[in-house]
Parts: sequence; structure tokens; C-alpha cells
Amino acid sequence: MNMLVDGEWRTDAYETTNEEGEFERQSTTFRDEIVDDPDAQFPAEAGRYHLYVSKACPWAHRTLLVRALKGLEDAITVDVVDPYRDEGGWQFTPEKDGCTPDSINGFDYLREAYVAADPDATCRVTVPVLWDKKEDTIVNNESEEILRMLDTEMDRVADRDVDLYPDGYQDEIDEIIDEIYEPINNGVYRAGFASSQAAYDEAVEDLFAALDHWDSVLGDQRYLAGDRLTEADICMFTTLVRFDQVYHTHFMCNRQHVQEYDNLWPYLRDLYQTPSVAETVDMAHIKEHYYTTHPDVNPSGIVAAGPDLDFEADHDRDEMGGSPPEDLLPLA
Amino acid sequence: MNMLVDGEWRTDAYETTNEEGEFERQSTTFRDEIVDDPDAQFPAEAGRYHLYVSKACPWAHRTLLVRALKGLEDAITVDVVDPYRDEGGWQFTPEKDGCTPDSINGFDYLREAYVAADPDATCRVTVPVLWDKKEDTIVNNESEEILRMLDTEMDRVADRDVDLYPDGYQDEIDEIIDEIYEPINNGVYRAGFASSQAAYDEAVEDLFAALDHWDSVLGDQRYLAGDRLTEADICMFTTLVRFDQVYHTHFMCNRQHVQEYDNLWPYLRDLYQTPSVAETVDMAHIKEHYYTTHPDVNPSGIVAAGPDLDFEADHDRDEMGGSPPEDLLPLA
Repeated sequence: MNMLVDGEWRTDAYETTNEEGEFERQSTTFRDEIVDDPDAQFPAEAGRYHLYVSKACPWAHRTLLVRALKGLEDAITVDVVDPYRDEGGWQFTPEKDGCTPDSINGFDYLREAYVAADPDATCRVTVPVLWDKKEDTIVNNESEEILRMLDTEMDRVADRDVDLYPDGYQDEIDEIIDEIYEPINNGVYRAGFASSQAAYDEAVEDLFAALDHWDSVLGDQRYLAGDRLTEADICMFTTLVRFDQVYHTHFMCNRQHVQEYDNLWPYLRDLYQTPSVAETVDMAHIKEHYYTTHPDVNPSGIVAAGPDLDFEADHDRDEMGGSPPEDLLPLA
Repeated sequence: MNMLVDGEWRTDAYETTNEEGEFERQSTTFRDEIVDDPDAQFPAEAGRYHLYVSKACPWAHRTLLVRALKGLEDAITVDVVDPYRDEGGWQFTPEKDGCTPDSINGFDYLREAYVAADPDATCRVTVPVLWDKKEDTIVNNESEEILRMLDTEMDRVADRDVDLYPDGYQDEIDEIIDEIYEPINNGVYRAGFASSQAAYDEAVEDLFAALDHWDSVLGDQRYLAGDRLTEADICMFTTLVRFDQVYHTHFMCNRQHVQEYDNLWPYLRDLYQTPSVAETVDMAHIKEHYYTTHPDVNPSGIVAAGPDLDFEADHDRDEMGGSPPEDLLPLA
């Protein structure tokens, strides 16, 4: 990936691996917050905020999920970039299936939004971006923080009463999100972008040790934090739903599929079948993005056939006790 | 891969794909035959012939299998090249595990044997090579023909009475070998080396249609040609045994694993557990070769973890009727 340096787009400035061949993710830049307080710099308001996302990206997918689960579609608008990312970075190509123009600023490239927010920006240009249409700036581009503020600060403009960070679960949710990040969410990238055998081996070992652990946990409880669907499940879901079709082959995370796990696979189907979730999953964008965008990993740019997965198959996990928030219960 | 042109080693002369992005395998060059006739140019004799092989290569593996199954180890010597093939082509690196020097000619590169056999050779330098130690030349480098001549012309110097091309089965064996070649044996390469989506899609479709077909056939009979282990099974085996660990991920043949097939997977284990077969399988050489030798497919050269397969697990296919030749029955 390329990056902005002092507001200029550079195609030679970004290294993904360190001297040991380990992938190192750069930190994000814009870290302001929407707050449920009319006097805040960025107060919770319907119609004021906008998400720039890629439907391919697991980090952006988190924000689409919380928006869908809480019924924030009317309150927060969304534009979708091209899943294929070339030297110019994320781009708006409204002529492609599932993509949109930049309906807010009319930009051709997402980097223009970064420069508009900060003319001297030095950073990678990533999705998701939470954009403030009133102040014409970026509020935040860190997925976990956007997920949290959309979940906890926007209730007054949400169409559903859905709390994914409930009292009594918060410490555990924070711990789980932190615990799964390095081996699982980022772990698939550490495996796929490793440039040394040792870095790859370590990433794969960490990844499957963590998947084995959570598969075992999910044998006894419906959700990661127990009997409640929470933000932790959102963070796990966006990696798991991409795993068998992309990470397994493209990032060589091929010790086994998610569909070979006794509990992770029904758990994934359970989440997928939760109301409003399936509509956020665009497997065509997901597959096109990964297989075509990383020439260092897949020079041919050919999209792999992949296994045929039935996310709609029965899972029976509702028999374990626990449920999603009432507003998300399937219609009888 | 590079090639010889008029006896000179060229690194710029070989194209693997045509204008449609389809992989096109070049034909082999040396096509003489060992014959069971003392007056033939290359008569069947113990101690006269030699195989240059890579234990990674499925084509060379065919010749190692027939040599092992028929008990030709004393009659035919073998040298093993380095599984990693760089710009110099197949190379002898005796210091590496499972590799040997060129014990016949002392060459460093296999290409030297080709030039010794034909100083003006214009061809790819491939394994297997069947070398005549008496005439100091290459008899043949086409795996299917070497398999056939070792099977049918060397009985007088073989330690076991094993006929893999028996009367009454020959037409069917020839048909099966021909039928599985393009979609399966060569099909995995057509998928992996495709440089266009259309060429890949067609290769993958052909491959899995053929695997589906033979999986169904093997639900009713123990071996490809019916109740007898034959050369057809050898030709199928060397592709199947590499499939889940290499072709599935490295060549993106990932619609499903062999281990997900109801009959192909027990069939593969049945063949693997036939006496003398397991000793010919070197999974370390197989994995190192593919993952490190094709920078256009896997630029990092990192060897994927791959699934853990138990080739020794019970298969129960002996209950179907049919058996390997008597000399290959497992000890009671």
C-alpha cells in the first residue's frame, strides 16, 4: 500500500514488513469521537455523519455491521469504494457492481478526503472513514473506535434498541476484542504478508492456537462474551466470514478451514443469520479485493474458485441459551 | 522454467502460457525404448539403466513407483535432484536431505546430462530421465513411456512378479491414463499456471468434474480399471498425494480437498498403504519444490503449513473385492 506524506501521494513510502519479515500494521491517524452530548465537538446527530467503506475490508465491515444491527441506516450515510485497489489507493468507481460515487464530496480517490481533512496528512489511506458532513472533516478512521461510538453514543438516533456493549459485560468485551486482534484479526494478515518462513510459521501457529481456543469456548456458550451478542462477536465475525474463501488460500492460512471447526462454523452461521447481518456481506467484493489487489501475494490476480459455503444452513445454537438483543430476534 | 537451445542454456526462451493465458506443456524429446530383447538397441538388463528423478515431481514419481512396486531397485539405480529449482534448472545438491550427487556422471546440473546425450539439444530439462550407463545417453524422458517399459519390459530383472498392465485390462488402462491426463494430472498445472481468469476457471471446472467422476467410479470398484491395481492408479496417485498439501493452495485448486471426497480419499490411502508405495513419497521435497520454485505463483517462497493428513488411517477398501498383485499383498 502507498501513503500520503505531507499531503502528497507517494507510491514508494510504505514498507509492510520489518527486517524479520514480519508484517507491521501502521496505526491510524484520526481519533476524534462522536459523543452523545449536544455540546461536544462531534455530537450524536442524525444525518450528520457518513461512512466511507470498502465492503471487502474486515475493518470497515465492523462499522457496517454495527450500523445495520442498530438500525442506523437512516442516520448515517455510506459510500462504497472499488474493491480493487491499485497504485492510487481506494477509489470511487460507481460504474462497478456494489460500488458508489463519493456522494458527499465527489472525490475520485479516498485520499482526497484525507487531504481535505488535513492538507499535510502523513498516513496510510484506509477504510473505514467516519466523515463529518457538517465540519467537512474526518472524525475517526480506527474501526474499533468507530464501532464503539456508533454502538454507545448514537442510541438517540438509532431505529433499534440494540446494545452491543452492555453493562456487566464491558470488561470482558474489551478483553476479548484485544485478545483476538493480534492472533486472529491481524493474524491472517501477518501470515499472508510475512516475507520470511519464520514470521509466517509463527503467525500461523498463533492464529490456529487462538481459533482452537475460541472453538472450545464456543462449545459451551453461544457468543464470545457468554450469552449476549456483543461487539466482540462483530470483531470475530468479519475475519471468520472471509476465512475459508480468502485467508485459507490467499494468505496460506491452510491448516484447516473454519468449516472444519465443530463450533466456530455453526457460530459463524448463527451470526450470519442474525437479522441485518447477511446484507452486509459482499463475497464478490471480498474475493475480488484480496486476490486482485496483492500482486506480491498473487501475481496473476486470478480469483480462486474457493469452497462453496452454505452460510444459511441450520446451526441449532439458539438451543444453547442466550440470544441476540430482543430487537434482533428473527421474526417468528 | 528455462531451457536448452542448440545445447546452450537459456533463461529467456520459455513461455508457459499462450495468448489466452493457458498453460501449455511442451513435449519431451528423448523417446527411445527399453525392450525385452537382447538384440534391441536398449535391451532389458540389470545394472545398465539409471533414473534421474526429483522426488517432488509427480511425473518422476511414476517411475519411482513402478520401480518400487516391481522390485527393480537392484536393477535400476536412482539419483535425486534438489527439490528447489532455480534459474539453472534441476541441480544436484548432495548436502541436502534426501538428495544425492549425480553418481553416474558427476554433473552439477541435470542439463549437463541432456547435453551429453545430445550436444545440440533444444528442449526443456525435465525429470524423469532414463539414462543408459552403457551408451552414456538418455533413453527416454517421457514419464508415461518409462513407466510402461519398466512395467512390461523388465520382468526378467525384477524381484517381484508384479504386472501393472495385465492382459484384458490394457485398452482400459490406456484409456484411463489418457482420460485423466488433461483434466487431472496436467489440470492442476493448468489451474496454477493460468495467467487469465478464463483459463483458470476452465481448468478448475475440468479438474473437479473429473475428480467428481472418478470419485463416483471408485464408489463401486477398488481401482480405476476395476479390481486390479494398474498403471492407471500410479498415474492418478502421484497427483492425488500432492493435492491437499500443494495443489489446493499453491495452484488454487481449492473447490475442495481430496480428503473431502468420499471415495478418492480412502482410495488414496489404500494406494499409499500398498507395500513399497509410502517409501516413494517425500512430502518435504514435494512442499519445498512447489512453494519455493514458482516465484510467479508464490513470490515469498514461503512453504504453507497445509492440512495434517493421515495417510495411514484405515480405509477398508479391501472389503470391496479386488487386490494388488499377490506379491504386493501386505504381510499377514
